[in-house]
Amino acid sequence: MMSLNYAKRMDNIRASEIRELLKLTQQPHIISFAGGMPAPESFPIEEFKKINKEVLESNGALALQYGPTEGYYPLREAIAKRMKKLDVDAKAENVLITSGSQQGLDFAAKIFINPGDIIVCESPTYLGAINAFKAYEPKFIEVSTDDQGMDMDELEEVLKANDNVKFIYVIPDFQNPSGRTWSIERRKKLVELANKYNVAIIEDNPYGELRFEGEILPAIKHFDTEGRVAFLGTFSKILCPGLRLGWVVADTDLLSKFILVKQGADLQSSTVSQVEVAKFLERYDLDEHIKKIIDLYKHRRDVMIDAIEKEFPKEVKYTYPEGGLFTWIVLPEYMNARELAKKALEYNVAYVPGGSFFPNGGNENTARLNYSNMNDEKIREGIKSLGKVIKESLR
Amino acid sequence: MMSLNYAKRMDNIRASEIRELLKLTQQPHIISFAGGMPAPESFPIEEFKKINKEVLESNGALALQYGPTEGYYPLREAIAKRMKKLDVDAKAENVLITSGSQQGLDFAAKIFINPGDIIVCESPTYLGAINAFKAYEPKFIEVSTDDQGMDMDELEEVLKANDNVKFIYVIPDFQNPSGRTWSIERRKKLVELANKYNVAIIEDNPYGELRFEGEILPAIKHFDTEGRVAFLGTFSKILCPGLRLGWVVADTDLLSKFILVKQGADLQSSTVSQVEVAKFLERYDLDEHIKKIIDLYKHRRDVMIDAIEKEFPKEVKYTYPEGGLFTWIVLPEYMNARELAKKALEYNVAYVPGGSFFPNGGNENTARLNYSNMNDEKIREGIKSLGKVIKESLR
Repeated sequence: MMSLNYAKRMDNIRASEIRELLKLTQQPHIISFAGGMPAPESFPIEEFKKINKEVLESNGALALQYGPTEGYYPLREAIAKRMKKLDVDAKAENVLITSGSQQGLDFAAKIFINPGDIIVCESPTYLGAINAFKAYEPKFIEVSTDDQGMDMDELEEVLKANDNVKFIYVIPDFQNPSGRTWSIERRKKLVELANKYNVAIIEDNPYGELRFEGEILPAIKHFDTEGRVAFLGTFSKILCPGLRLGWVVADTDLLSKFILVKQGADLQSSTVSQVEVAKFLERYDLDEHIKKIIDLYKHRRDVMIDAIEKEFPKEVKYTYPEGGLFTWIVLPEYMNARELAKKALEYNVAYVPGGSFFPNGGNENTARLNYSNMNDEKIREGIKSLGKVIKESLR
Repeated sequence: MMSLNYAKRMDNIRASEIRELLKLTQQPHIISFAGGMPAPESFPIEEFKKINKEVLESNGALALQYGPTEGYYPLREAIAKRMKKLDVDAKAENVLITSGSQQGLDFAAKIFINPGDIIVCESPTYLGAINAFKAYEPKFIEVSTDDQGMDMDELEEVLKANDNVKFIYVIPDFQNPSGRTWSIERRKKLVELANKYNVAIIEDNPYGELRFEGEILPAIKHFDTEGRVAFLGTFSKILCPGLRLGWVVADTDLLSKFILVKQGADLQSSTVSQVEVAKFLERYDLDEHIKKIIDLYKHRRDVMIDAIEKEFPKEVKYTYPEGGLFTWIVLPEYMNARELAKKALEYNVAYVPGGSFFPNGGNENTARLNYSNMNDEKIREGIKSLGKVIKESLR
């Protein structure tokens, strides 16, 4: 047969390295620092058993039926309330329930991007966002970041020089992959620049509540004066990812666009999961639950950082994350983390080579390490093996 | 502020009339023939209560965690087996789990459509598909249909005259909105023409198993010799829609494209829902469950058709569906079903004006009536009111 004639965009889309690694790392003998998987021991299994029973008994016909595209109203209400933790004033009407925050990323590009339009992002940035955006054929401009966030002078140069920037994509809290957090000053300044140059901001915040030390910072959405920030949240890291529930918070005009594309994309997210999570939020204290996750991940971060200090040669740099799931490794420039990953796999250790987090390529001497999903012993053993692999590659 | 600069595709996307009507029809005093909502009394609530408990007890950490993009393997296996009912030979590897079959529609257009490419569809065709496809800026060519399916001579003329047809979208069983079913001959011929003109076929089959009389026909996918048919299925109408689980069956090459776009769009569908439905299929007899749904809907179709014969003037034509959820009404040409819908709402009766099912417009004298979601009394009362409204508009 003649081969099928696919759309041009399909030339851009490649399999996500993380999703492919995930398959591999489901083998029990692999020590995986690769995925961004939460610790399953933190899942509220008992609570969900009770809630499911209650929801199906009292409200089964509603929970198993179609519902509105915007989402289950009591859940939208509860999320709007929770946004206060990040200093965001929102009403239920500002909330759209999505199938994980990944869906919010896909929608953002669908709403804004014509082929050739520019997305400005941090360098490095989340691989899953790069993959979602690529389907809409954007150009990426990466802006340097330091421990305070994006370089604002460089950002303004980019905005001044390019009139088809559609949005700036940022993960201001415990960034994926770098583990870094933006300062309040940079958050404010970002909104100022977005206003000045008439672009939107997509604020992706899956980990903001998983802060091990210091205080939770106001979201960038808090500083939004003109309705140009869409905030993406998710229950994946604070409850569990298997339900696939996230949300978008935005002002009416922008949110209406997200709702429109949601209608076409999948009509609505799971009614039963929405009713269950709404019940969970009503019945249990999510903040108490999050504290337990924080204790667990803070401990695992400490174990990983201690092991890195002990096992990695001094030529290796790493970030010290104050929250979230990842630390970021910078190897000597002559090393290639993709090559090292193959050697590491011989020791049954997996991680994501950092080059994948740079949409325009390069930076092959970097790596992302996840510490949320492995126990202490595996973290120590895995880091020790990685240390060996790195030392063998030293010149 | 200056208004945000959205992508060109957003000019094409409008709110789905059905989704908007759904909101309205959630008011209990409305007799709704509008949505395509299953009867909630058919939902296996007790079974799902037991299954949820069992799944969370035995497999909670897996059910609430991330899983592979392709879907939960035992569910893919079970679906592959079930495809035999439609004479489709499939392996688990040919199945991708989607968030309802609506997501399969979105993906089909994402995979194939560059702006200006042509989608060939039945006339009329499913409104939700039109909306999903429009985001990718296609042109639609509608091909006439009769009680045997699409007119194959007309289809060949279209394929001969246009070299940028990417796929033919069809709903061969109890079509939405017309209620019609394709003959075997047309199914075969469709595949022959697709082979000859090198286009893909998107076969949307949400109702195929809901056949009230006669025998289930082989799917178009059954006749596929070159891997150009993607079959879309869903649990929404045979189990319940609130779980948002559907599937795509396709050969390796085509399916790999669906998997790639699924990764970017939402990573994966709900793990817990997938594990639960797999358990349902293992533990219970879905075919027995479907028989109960068939009995209920067959009865309701009979009630609606009887009422139509009694209450509608003879100038009105309607289809007699052998299965599925809908009948299709053709009013005298001088009538406008959108105008009539407003009058019907004064009698608290809702339906979807048929014009929405024609991507290129026209045919405003048509309407889609759903009979699955209302009880006998409401069907009779609603059709009586509709009959009144129509009679008042006779010239």
